[in-house]
Amino acid sequence: MTDSEVIVRKAVKEDCEQILGLVRELAEYEKMPECVEMTLETLQNDGFPSNGRPPAYTCHVLDRAGTLLGFALHFFTYSTWQGLSLYLEDLYVTPGARGTGLGRRLIAQVAGWAVDSGCARLNFSVLNWNASAKEFYKRIGADNLSEKEGWEAYRVSGRALSALADLARK
Amino acid sequence: MTDSEVIVRKAVKEDCEQILGLVRELAEYEKMPECVEMTLETLQNDGFPSNGRPPAYTCHVLDRAGTLLGFALHFFTYSTWQGLSLYLEDLYVTPGARGTGLGRRLIAQVAGWAVDSGCARLNFSVLNWNASAKEFYKRIGADNLSEKEGWEAYRVSGRALSALADLARK
Repeated sequence: MTDSEVIVRKAVKEDCEQILGLVRELAEYEKMPECVEMTLETLQNDGFPSNGRPPAYTCHVLDRAGTLLGFALHFFTYSTWQGLSLYLEDLYVTPGARGTGLGRRLIAQVAGWAVDSGCARLNFSVLNWNASAKEFYKRIGADNLSEKEGWEAYRVSGRALSALADLARK
Repeated sequence: MTDSEVIVRKAVKEDCEQILGLVRELAEYEKMPECVEMTLETLQNDGFPSNGRPPAYTCHVLDRAGTLLGFALHFFTYSTWQGLSLYLEDLYVTPGARGTGLGRRLIAQVAGWAVDSGCARLNFSVLNWNASAKEFYKRIGADNLSEKEGWEAYRVSGRALSALADLARK
């Protein structure tokens, strides 16, 4: 396979089935396959809504003759320090297509999207044991903010979230 | 001051000046005051756009007779595992108003907003040396995902972001 046979393009609704397959592959690699509760219908409706709502995400894909070799799913966020930002939720290249610069082409496209949209930051999260990902992100000039500034990721979900929400209703 | 004199409500455009003051106080507390590049005009336009664009963020405030004692600024994000999520970018209560349950009331309101909007997750980031914040979030049932799953926060910005974006244009 040569690099030039693969194009990077924005995903369309019809890509969602293959994207969901790649989401599951990535979750498997991240050792949390049981966490994927996503359905094809939800992924389609949230990214390509027909009711006039703005899409919940945008996705870029690596396409070789109709087969997706990778995807980058992202959305706008907001920093009270620097304004509009882009968050890269997932970046994934299938194992057989790695080492040929496709990951770099994909994240470059996302960076272009961020800059063209006026974003000062491209943020994402990496698992601390994922040495090859950390190496890749270091090479493209990313800062590890957990190391540099001490940020830790927190979440309220499930019963704790419902219980907290109930407090506001009292 | 009694708790009942303070109301929690959604911010309006006219609150932006006080919110920006609180953003600066929080950045000072976080030991990164020089990082606040935000202007009043940008905060107003991004949260309360007049051009038909969707707002880049939503904000809830603690209001005592017109004086804001705290704010919580948040926006929707997207998980490929669980769909629509809410990200809490900033939660801040002024020092003089702490210890009276106002922070809890504020985050409860945000949790209610998340649940009513169909979010399965409320995410945020905490500085690892901020022991009182970590204790507060633990009490409301938050998980530290950096500790539990090993997530680290990364960012590409400034020259590295421009250079990466340029690659996509070649």
